[in-house]
Amino acid sequence: MGGTALNILFVMYDQLRFDYLSCAGHPHLHTPNFDRVAAMGVRFTNAYVQSPICGASRMSTYTGRYASSHGAQWNGFPLRIGEMTMGDHLRKLGMECWLIGKTHMKADKEGMSRLGLSPDSVIGARQEECGFDVWVRDDGLWGQGPDGFYDEKRSPYNEYLKSKGYESPNPWADFANAGISDNQIASGWMFDNADKAANIREEDSETPWLTSQAIAFMEQAKGTWCAHVSYIKPHWPYIVPAPYHNMFGKNHVPQAKRHALEREGAHPVYAAYMEGKISEAFQQDPVREKVIPAYMGLIKQCDDQLGRLLDYLEESGQLKDTMIVLTSDHGDYLGDHWLGEKDLFHEQSVKVPLIIHDPRDEAQGTRGTTCDALVEAIDLLPTFVQAAGGNVPDHILEGRSLEPFLHGKATQTREFVISEFDYSPTPQCVKLELEPRDARLFMVFDGRYKLMHAEGGFRPMLFDLVSDPDEFVDLAKDNEHSAEIDRLYGYLAQWGRRLAQRVTKSEDDIKAMRGRSRRKGILPFLKDGTEVPAELTEAYRGPALQNHLDERKEAGE
Amino acid sequence: MGGTALNILFVMYDQLRFDYLSCAGHPHLHTPNFDRVAAMGVRFTNAYVQSPICGASRMSTYTGRYASSHGAQWNGFPLRIGEMTMGDHLRKLGMECWLIGKTHMKADKEGMSRLGLSPDSVIGARQEECGFDVWVRDDGLWGQGPDGFYDEKRSPYNEYLKSKGYESPNPWADFANAGISDNQIASGWMFDNADKAANIREEDSETPWLTSQAIAFMEQAKGTWCAHVSYIKPHWPYIVPAPYHNMFGKNHVPQAKRHALEREGAHPVYAAYMEGKISEAFQQDPVREKVIPAYMGLIKQCDDQLGRLLDYLEESGQLKDTMIVLTSDHGDYLGDHWLGEKDLFHEQSVKVPLIIHDPRDEAQGTRGTTCDALVEAIDLLPTFVQAAGGNVPDHILEGRSLEPFLHGKATQTREFVISEFDYSPTPQCVKLELEPRDARLFMVFDGRYKLMHAEGGFRPMLFDLVSDPDEFVDLAKDNEHSAEIDRLYGYLAQWGRRLAQRVTKSEDDIKAMRGRSRRKGILPFLKDGTEVPAELTEAYRGPALQNHLDERKEAGE
Repeated sequence: MGGTALNILFVMYDQLRFDYLSCAGHPHLHTPNFDRVAAMGVRFTNAYVQSPICGASRMSTYTGRYASSHGAQWNGFPLRIGEMTMGDHLRKLGMECWLIGKTHMKADKEGMSRLGLSPDSVIGARQEECGFDVWVRDDGLWGQGPDGFYDEKRSPYNEYLKSKGYESPNPWADFANAGISDNQIASGWMFDNADKAANIREEDSETPWLTSQAIAFMEQAKGTWCAHVSYIKPHWPYIVPAPYHNMFGKNHVPQAKRHALEREGAHPVYAAYMEGKISEAFQQDPVREKVIPAYMGLIKQCDDQLGRLLDYLEESGQLKDTMIVLTSDHGDYLGDHWLGEKDLFHEQSVKVPLIIHDPRDEAQGTRGTTCDALVEAIDLLPTFVQAAGGNVPDHILEGRSLEPFLHGKATQTREFVISEFDYSPTPQCVKLELEPRDARLFMVFDGRYKLMHAEGGFRPMLFDLVSDPDEFVDLAKDNEHSAEIDRLYGYLAQWGRRLAQRVTKSEDDIKAMRGRSRRKGILPFLKDGTEVPAELTEAYRGPALQNHLDERKEAGE
Repeated sequence: MGGTALNILFVMYDQLRFDYLSCAGHPHLHTPNFDRVAAMGVRFTNAYVQSPICGASRMSTYTGRYASSHGAQWNGFPLRIGEMTMGDHLRKLGMECWLIGKTHMKADKEGMSRLGLSPDSVIGARQEECGFDVWVRDDGLWGQGPDGFYDEKRSPYNEYLKSKGYESPNPWADFANAGISDNQIASGWMFDNADKAANIREEDSETPWLTSQAIAFMEQAKGTWCAHVSYIKPHWPYIVPAPYHNMFGKNHVPQAKRHALEREGAHPVYAAYMEGKISEAFQQDPVREKVIPAYMGLIKQCDDQLGRLLDYLEESGQLKDTMIVLTSDHGDYLGDHWLGEKDLFHEQSVKVPLIIHDPRDEAQGTRGTTCDALVEAIDLLPTFVQAAGGNVPDHILEGRSLEPFLHGKATQTREFVISEFDYSPTPQCVKLELEPRDARLFMVFDGRYKLMHAEGGFRPMLFDLVSDPDEFVDLAKDNEHSAEIDRLYGYLAQWGRRLAQRVTKSEDDIKAMRGRSRRKGILPFLKDGTEVPAELTEAYRGPALQNHLDERKEAGE
C-alpha cells in the first residue's frame, strides 16, 4: 500500500455521448461542471468501451477485462462466480469500494448455489453486487409489464418517491418518467412525449436523488474509499422535469449524421439494425426534434448535479484528496447512421467521455489538457489500483493504468482498441437466422482504420476515420482494401491469443517458481547423478535407506 | 436423465505414447489387454491432448475446455475457483464421479479463501480435488529434496508401503523407484539405473496397488458412477520391478526418429528444448537403450493390470454396463526429434492412445474398428455427459461428444485440433529471455499440416505429415508455404474468437430470453404507443395513476 490517502469518486453516466459536453465541443449544450473537471484534469478524446451495451460494458469496467474474458456479454448474463471485481482488487489494498446507483450486475445464482454461497453472507452479498458494498443499488429501469417488473429487486428510488407522497405502485413510471397531458399520463416511453415535463418535483427526480445519496455517503465515509456513483441518466426514457424539459428546442438539434450511401449494399448486421423499431423511429426528424432536446436537458441536469458533488468536495476540503473520474458506459446514436440506441461500433456508440482529475502533485503538468491516445474503459481499474498504492495484477486485469498519461509520463500507447457486441438475444439475431453463438461482433480500431468483424460468415466492415471521419463509407464493400483488413484481422488474431485466464499465477509468481521442483527432488534429467550439485544428491541417494544399507554393510551382513 | 445405468471406467495413463501398444502397431510390445478393449470398442488413431504436459492436459480433460479457457496452463497453476469439472457435470445427472489416483490438480486456495470455502466442507473438498470425490488421491511423484517434498500432501502409496514393511521415510523413492546395486541404492531418477529391478515386490508397486484400489472401489460402488482410475505410470522415474525389468532389451529399442536436418536453422524454441538436459541425455544411445526397455516394461505391467480390471468387470457381470476409456495425458519423445520428455507438438508428444468400449447396443457396429477422425481430449467429457443421459452444455464444454463415432453415426468431423504449451516456468523461457506471458506455444493441426505458433516474435513451424510423416522438415524455414501457413493461422484466429467464457447462459437460455424484456415493460421504441399490442399498453399507461386521474376527471376535479 502506498502512503497516499487518495479517495476515488468514480462517476458513471449511462448512454452519455462523448460529444454532448461543451468541453468536447458541443455547440449548444453548456456543461460548466464537466468542463470544470476537465480544467482540473485530463480529458481523454479517444476512450472506448469494451462493449456498446450497458451490462457487458460495465462488467468490463468493473473487472478490468474484455467481454470475452469475463463472459457476461449481454444485459442479464450473470457474471460468473469467482470473476474478480473492482471491489476485490481495491479492498485488498485497504480501499473500500462502494456502490451508489446502477451496475446492471446479474448474480450467478447457479454458481453461488454450486459453491454454497449464501446471499446473506458478506462474501455472498458482494458476489451478488459485483464486488461492491452497497450504499444504494438502483439500476434505474423499473419497467413493468404483463410479466411483472423488469428488475426483480425492490427499487429504493421508488420507495423514496412513495415516502415523498408520489402515490402509485410504480412512481418511477408514473411520475419520474412520465408527464401529464390532457389529464392523461404521457409516458416517457413514447418519444412523442419527450417534450413534456416529467410529473415530478425536480429535486425528487433520479439524478438529484442519487446525488444526495452520494453526498450522504461521503459525509459519513471513513478511511480511503472508492465510491462508484452510477447514474441511470441520460439513458431513456427520454423525459426530464422542469426546468430542463424546455431548455433546448428544435433549433439545438443538429442534422442527423447519416448518408444515403450507408444504405447501399449495407452490411447485413448493420442493415438489420437500421430496420429495427428504434432505428425507424429515430429516422424520423420529429422524433429527433423531441428526443434530443430532452436528452440535452437530462445532461444539463447531470451537469448541475455534478456541480453539487464538486461543491461538496470543495467545501468539505476533500477535493485535494479525491480523484474524480467521469465517464459513461456507451453512447447513443440519436438517429446518426440511421440508428437509434447504441449496440454497433460507430463513434457515437462506442466512444465515451472520459475525464479524470488526479489531485496528486505528479499530475500538476497535465491539468486542463486533453489526451488523444487510444484508451479503453478497462484501463480504469488498473488506474485505481495504482491510485490505491498497489501493483497492477496484470495476469488478471487486461487494461493498462492511465497513470502515465495523468502524470505526463506515458511512453507507450496501445496499437489498437477492442470492443465486442453479443446480440444473441435480439430480434436482429432472429432476423439473420443465426444461432446465439454466431451473433457476435468484434471491433478493432487502430486510431485510423476501424474494422468490424461479424461471426456467422459475414464480410467485415471497414472505415477510414482520416478520410471519412463521419464513417459513411464502408470500405469493405469493395475488395480494394485487403491490406488494411488483413492488418486489422492480424490485431484481432493477436488479441484472440491473449493471456486472459491464467489468473491464478502472476508473472512474478511464475518467475519465482523456476527451478523449485528440482530442489524438491524432481530430477528427471539424471544420467548418472553427476549433473546436479551435491546439495541435491540426497534427493536420489535415499538417505534413510542408504544409512540402513551402510549399517548392514558395516555389520558384515 | 437417460434410462441407462451405464458406468464409466475412465482409465488414464501418464506419458503413454500412442504407438507403444500392439494394437497401434508396436513391433515388440505385446499389450493383449489394451488390444482386448480395442477389439470391443473403437480405437481413435488421431486423438490429441490440449497441452502436452500433465497438469494443463488433465485440467482440459477434466473441464472439457482448452488450456487458454480454464487457465491452469502449467503444472501447479491452480485451477481457478468456479471452473466447472467432470464431477460438477456428471453429478448433476445423477452419476457419481470418483478419483482413484492422479489428477495433478492444484487448488485455487486464494480463490477459495476469497469465497470463504473451507477445504473441510464437501463443496470445498471437491473444489480442491478438481470436482472429484476422492477414493484415493496419489499424484505419484513423491520426490524430496532440500526444500522438502514436491507434493505437499501425504502419500497414501507411501503409507501403504510402510504398512507392508518397506522401512524408509520415503519408500516411494527408496523402494518403488530405486533398485539396489553393489549394496547401494540405485535411484530410478538416474537413467543409468533404468535396467535395474525396482527394489519392491511386484504386487506392491504402484500400478498393481492402484489397480487394487480401483477394484476395491468397484466392489462397493452403488448407483451409477464414473471412476477415474489414473495411473502415474509409465511416467518417469523409469524403473520397474521384476519380472518386467528385463523383459525387453537393446534389441527392442528402435532407432531414434531424428534427422540432422532438424538441427539446421531450428526454430529457437525447438532449439532451446533440444539443448535441455533431458534432451541431451536422450540424444545418447546408451540412455535410450536402458530407458526404453524399462518404459516398455512399465507399459507391459500396465497392460497386465488392465487385465485384472477387465477380468474383474467380466467376472462381476459389469462389463455389459461399463464404458471403458483408455487414454493418456501426453506422450514421451524418448529421444525422437533429439528430445526427451514431452512439451512440444510432434506426434510422439501430443498424440495419445484413445480406446473406448461402449457397451450399448448402438455401438455394436463399430466394435473392433478404428476411427481416424481428428479428436481432442476435451471430447471425453461431453461423451460422458451423453453416456450419463444428459445434454451437452456446449456453452461451457468446448469439446464434442464422441458418441456419434462410437455409434457409427458421425456426419461431421472437426477441421482442426488445437494444443497449447505454456513454458513460462522453464529454463527454456529463461534462455530465450522471454517474459512469462510470451512463453506460449499453440499448435493447429488439420490432419495434414501442423503449424506451431510461438508468442514472443518468433517465426512459426510447419510440417506436412503427408509428404513428411516423421516431421523432420520444418517447412516454415523457407518462405514458400505462406498459403498453408496463412490458412492455419486463419484457423487459429477463428479459435481465438471462440465463445469460451459465456458460461452462465446456454444457447437455449438465450433463445428463451428473447422478447422477454418488453413483456416486463421495457419499451424504448415507442413513438406514440401504437407500436405494441394492447396487452403491453398497460406497461406505459401507468394503470394505477391513470385510474386515479380518471376518477378525478369523473369527479369533475
